[in-house]
Amino acid sequence: MLVLNAEERERLEVVLVRPRNPLNIGAAARAMANFGLTHLTVVEPWEPSWRSARSAVGAPELLTEGREAKSVAEAVGGATYVVGTGSLTYRKPDQEADLVERMADPVRARLAAGEWVAILFGPEKHGLTREDLSYCHALAVIPTDDGQPSMNLGQAVAVCLYELAGRGNAETQTLAAGAPMPATAETLERLEKLVLEVMAWTEPQLIGEGSARELRELFRRLSVGEKDGKRVLGTFRRILWRFRKLS
Amino acid sequence: MLVLNAEERERLEVVLVRPRNPLNIGAAARAMANFGLTHLTVVEPWEPSWRSARSAVGAPELLTEGREAKSVAEAVGGATYVVGTGSLTYRKPDQEADLVERMADPVRARLAAGEWVAILFGPEKHGLTREDLSYCHALAVIPTDDGQPSMNLGQAVAVCLYELAGRGNAETQTLAAGAPMPATAETLERLEKLVLEVMAWTEPQLIGEGSARELRELFRRLSVGEKDGKRVLGTFRRILWRFRKLS
Repeated sequence: MLVLNAEERERLEVVLVRPRNPLNIGAAARAMANFGLTHLTVVEPWEPSWRSARSAVGAPELLTEGREAKSVAEAVGGATYVVGTGSLTYRKPDQEADLVERMADPVRARLAAGEWVAILFGPEKHGLTREDLSYCHALAVIPTDDGQPSMNLGQAVAVCLYELAGRGNAETQTLAAGAPMPATAETLERLEKLVLEVMAWTEPQLIGEGSARELRELFRRLSVGEKDGKRVLGTFRRILWRFRKLS
Repeated sequence: MLVLNAEERERLEVVLVRPRNPLNIGAAARAMANFGLTHLTVVEPWEPSWRSARSAVGAPELLTEGREAKSVAEAVGGATYVVGTGSLTYRKPDQEADLVERMADPVRARLAAGEWVAILFGPEKHGLTREDLSYCHALAVIPTDDGQPSMNLGQAVAVCLYELAGRGNAETQTLAAGAPMPATAETLERLEKLVLEVMAWTEPQLIGEGSARELRELFRRLSVGEKDGKRVLGTFRRILWRFRKLS
């Protein structure tokens, strides 16, 4: 279901810089699990919060085995490409900033070429500092409303990972699970005849030359499924049977 | 920054069906605020949880003014198009299922045409039931890893709203904020001359016919910005000055 293969996902790292809230750390880890990532690094976490997040019931392995780094430099040491995240509300960044949707292709190309990519998320209150961002090659921005531009940390991680690792397989993937099997022409033809028979009982004055064709077109416009078509056939059979019985 | 205009966002409603956790209700409301939506309806909430979410410090107006509905039917009564959300892990839905990324265009087209669209999110544990989904025209699926397919409610709301209301403006929007102003040809030329002068002090044997051209090409490959170019100019000037002083 995911757009990155297992090896590419292995090389996409998430770095949380100075997170404060254990719930957010847990939420970030959960989003990573949702999108099949495994490498989490936390930079200078507030210790009680980091401990609490890792010991939470149901904490995924990627969290309990998460790495702690003393600095952003140490955290991104193994990466060949580093993407910061944030909004452009408070300052003009020194590095190239772009919509996260436009970063997906370049990031995937790097992962496919064997590079290690790290995505940095800043602390809850103020986001990444200028110093943090100086380790980034680019800044990815989630477009938000000016009235409430700042996203919750766990939700920002989910959106970014969805964009980088989850979405983008519309071209290659067909999800036909819920699309009903269309009715066969035979079923539609039997339906058309039955409905005409019923109309002959209920509104014979309305049956004209074009009626059969009109019904045929109607059933196709409705894109009736085979199962639904058979169900409706049964209903009309019972209506006819009732007419005959009553007459 | 958002891809939907204010009127379209006004007609995109979020419906939380039987949510249990007040933090998730709060997170869903926050994501709505991030993407500029205002209409929240909660179906059969667990009352203490609903009360707690609404009275939380900093609860946005869209949450305190959120509507409570007794049934899914009541909640989606005003909508002309209803999209359920969920995974395909546990059952095959009766309605058309597709990746949420493929639903963005049709949903936006409906909103642009003046329709009201409701997006339904199920309860934390099991998602929308078959009965809930029977009110939906389509089921939107977020692609996730098979090992952990189920997303946290607040994060699923963030991802879906990002897809429907936030992203998709890459074509129309340029975010040049962080892209540095490239250096002028004049700055680059002065730089080229200075570096050649420095080379004359340090490695005269390496200066040949093509050296100036090679430097020129190098500076352009590096896409030096004006500010950086001036900074480097200063450095080379100081190097030259030191050479002259020492000699």
